[in-house]
Amino acid sequence: MSPQALRELIAQGKFDRPTSGECPGYVQANMVALPREYAKSFEKFARANAKAIPVLEVIDEGFTSKIMAKGANILTDIPRYNILKNGVVVEEVTDITPYYQEDLVFFLIGCSFSFENALIQNGMPLRYVDEKKNVSMYRTNIKLNEVDGFSGEMVVSMRPIKKEKVADACVVTSHFPRMHGSPIHVGYPEMIGVKDIANPDYGDSVLIKEDEIPLFWPCGVTPQNVITKMKLPFAITHAPGHMFVSDVKDSEYYE
Amino acid sequence: MSPQALRELIAQGKFDRPTSGECPGYVQANMVALPREYAKSFEKFARANAKAIPVLEVIDEGFTSKIMAKGANILTDIPRYNILKNGVVVEEVTDITPYYQEDLVFFLIGCSFSFENALIQNGMPLRYVDEKKNVSMYRTNIKLNEVDGFSGEMVVSMRPIKKEKVADACVVTSHFPRMHGSPIHVGYPEMIGVKDIANPDYGDSVLIKEDEIPLFWPCGVTPQNVITKMKLPFAITHAPGHMFVSDVKDSEYYE
Repeated sequence: MSPQALRELIAQGKFDRPTSGECPGYVQANMVALPREYAKSFEKFARANAKAIPVLEVIDEGFTSKIMAKGANILTDIPRYNILKNGVVVEEVTDITPYYQEDLVFFLIGCSFSFENALIQNGMPLRYVDEKKNVSMYRTNIKLNEVDGFSGEMVVSMRPIKKEKVADACVVTSHFPRMHGSPIHVGYPEMIGVKDIANPDYGDSVLIKEDEIPLFWPCGVTPQNVITKMKLPFAITHAPGHMFVSDVKDSEYYE
Repeated sequence: MSPQALRELIAQGKFDRPTSGECPGYVQANMVALPREYAKSFEKFARANAKAIPVLEVIDEGFTSKIMAKGANILTDIPRYNILKNGVVVEEVTDITPYYQEDLVFFLIGCSFSFENALIQNGMPLRYVDEKKNVSMYRTNIKLNEVDGFSGEMVVSMRPIKKEKVADACVVTSHFPRMHGSPIHVGYPEMIGVKDIANPDYGDSVLIKEDEIPLFWPCGVTPQNVITKMKLPFAITHAPGHMFVSDVKDSEYYE
């Protein structure tokens, strides 16, 4: 299915699942929408934490993408959204048209789903994709660089990788620096403050086999964690794992 | 010091220590010498296990290097050698001139010391280099591909790396595929049959700090392990950690 076709299904409310494994080879993006008064500071914060929050596009007029998927409607073309008030998710919805305000600025942020295809093509199948689950995501103790009052800790996604493929996974994903790049941590979940690997903070739990090692990549859910901690009065984000699927090929972001 | 100057000291018996950290930026090599009747099979075995045993030069006439250090005398220019009879190290010597036989074939094999400089330059200091120790090496349960009766398990070298630098270490060393390339294993020593990380099978023990993870690279001591297991009647190798320092820059092997 083309990204356009998938986004059309999503806009029609016919697809509201996690997007991992969909439209292989196309870049997927996290979304954060903030009132204009916070947008400049958030952008600076993102740039100071570019491995966790790599900004791909800023839409500060209207709600239509100009770079990642020309003409796509950010209000309807993501499968699920979280509405946050004072840092708390008050609602999960499939269409944010009713919540649109003219002063909202939308950020599209690189997502590790974009390099899944490269991992699979290089002999690293992904269990959560095969099982049509959401990726496992965890809050960590990895501190972000503080900017203009924005601060907090990184959220990571986890993929179990066969032990003899761990270095390959680091190398393959390093070629996608704007999709978080190489892992931020390898093995030993407790070293980054993940206490129970079987109970992710977001997404689904996946099995880690005896000959596999958990690899952790920075995750675009990080801003939600920050917004929650800051108790920002209002924000909209994608729901973890439910991404904006763009028209841009992952090869265009291969460095 | 230039590699030529170091080799001269070595030939004079004035340097017989491990060579890690010496002549940074120059390729170092493992050495294996075998009677001609085993040489062809060993070469095939090496090529079938190129990540562990990457052959850089074969000297099958005389004992002088033509590629890695033109004119260097393989019999005197390595700090220490092991003499193996029936697979047992019967002597460790600093000069093998008395053991030379016309039918010996010498193999120079890529060594991970060659990418130490790249690790250090990329912000990964190496404790054993700083402490002027030999690198820690371990026998593993990683099976080699069997060829013509040559078989056995891989030997690995271990370097503790800061947890946030693990992926970088994989990426940096992946650019030196003929010096073993990226790690064969990351963390969890027991997964590759290393039971006591504090007691290496070759070299010195080094501290692994709380915020560090042990990374394992294939090691050119692997052939010695194979020769020992096969109980080959006669062989000469370098002593683990005591390498042939060549005149070739590591940048020439950067891919």
